[in-house]
Amino acid sequence: MQGNLKLITNKHKTMKRIYLIALASLVISAKAMSQETKAVHGYTYGTSQIAKSPFTLEELKLLEQSMLFTDEDVKYLKMSHDILAGQTDAILDVWYGFVGSTPQLVYFFGNKTTGKPDGEYLAKVRGRFKMWILQTAEANYDQNWLNYQYEIGLRHYSTKKNKTDNAPSVPIINYRYIPALTIPVITTLKPFLAKTGASAADVEKMNAAWLKSVLMQSILWGQPYMKKGEF
Amino acid sequence: MQGNLKLITNKHKTMKRIYLIALASLVISAKAMSQETKAVHGYTYGTSQIAKSPFTLEELKLLEQSMLFTDEDVKYLKMSHDILAGQTDAILDVWYGFVGSTPQLVYFFGNKTTGKPDGEYLAKVRGRFKMWILQTAEANYDQNWLNYQYEIGLRHYSTKKNKTDNAPSVPIINYRYIPALTIPVITTLKPFLAKTGASAADVEKMNAAWLKSVLMQSILWGQPYMKKGEF
Repeated sequence: MQGNLKLITNKHKTMKRIYLIALASLVISAKAMSQETKAVHGYTYGTSQIAKSPFTLEELKLLEQSMLFTDEDVKYLKMSHDILAGQTDAILDVWYGFVGSTPQLVYFFGNKTTGKPDGEYLAKVRGRFKMWILQTAEANYDQNWLNYQYEIGLRHYSTKKNKTDNAPSVPIINYRYIPALTIPVITTLKPFLAKTGASAADVEKMNAAWLKSVLMQSILWGQPYMKKGEF
Repeated sequence: MQGNLKLITNKHKTMKRIYLIALASLVISAKAMSQETKAVHGYTYGTSQIAKSPFTLEELKLLEQSMLFTDEDVKYLKMSHDILAGQTDAILDVWYGFVGSTPQLVYFFGNKTTGKPDGEYLAKVRGRFKMWILQTAEANYDQNWLNYQYEIGLRHYSTKKNKTDNAPSVPIINYRYIPALTIPVITTLKPFLAKTGASAADVEKMNAAWLKSVLMQSILWGQPYMKKGEF
């Protein structure tokens, strides 16, 4: 009886421990999820909310070849990841500074009635922009990545513009400005690539890889703007 | 009588001289025209055959600002003109070599029935491609230049693809490959910029200006692919 009771008590204690561990991890993961949701509003990369890209990985490979994007570029993008990871806020300050001071660009973040830049919208996009820096540098250009490029395209196009952030803004980003932004992005990125002691040659190669990747992504984002067979 | 005869003879001689000069210049200009037509088939830059671009010079200025294209870029493009002018054939050999060895690119010069590259079509385009190098380097980005960008766009799109050269080729160039080619163009151009003794710093700046100009042009060529208000 005493033995049985001890066994039950022990069993109970074990159950209680398991229960507490489960509860704790639930609380932790809920908190993590809430933080992630808070930090990266609308960031649905790799989730079931993202449709499959109509552009295939085979077509991506052919596009990469046409723009001399090779394994070396992947290597240098990956090298840039840890260099940039700690500087994303400073980088975004520069990019937002540029967009904010260029009326024809900040227009796309403007309230469609008043024309004034929508602070909340800009802030929500910024969280995803940070993830985009890290993702570009991770350079895992697989099906999940490709699907998310299509999603980003839809969010620039009238299909999904404003929807993710419930923003009261203009209905579309004119495509011409998307590949154009490749230049300020890579130009202003270069000093950040150099900031943590990489050699000048490595900085050049990282920057060249970024040029190719950003241009390639801006091309992919154009898909919703064009008819099937013309893109 | 003798005097009159002399006068008539002199008059005749003068007339004959004028006639010969006129004939000679006619022959020379006909030869020049035939050479030009032969060399630059379908090159209608600045002529009345070109429609006005629906994209305005004011919009071009805003696009330039968005891609940090400045007077300094114009200066370095102009600097590249005389460096490249004597090397256009060698440059085109490299570019045609790249396109020719990349099946997804040479496809657009292929016979739509047999799929085989159309030599005549490739040769005709090459003449205009040479003029494009010089034009890009001249960097007179005025209304004539803007109008011709629209014409180039139409010639990539189904509107005018094949028409200028009466080519039996595929009906459109898929847009994604157009801005993509910015990378091989500027990558392979760099050694040519360095070949005539410019300083390394000048070569970098010329190449950076070329990057901006080629990307900007490839963006402008996208206009026919998109709806008004979405481009």
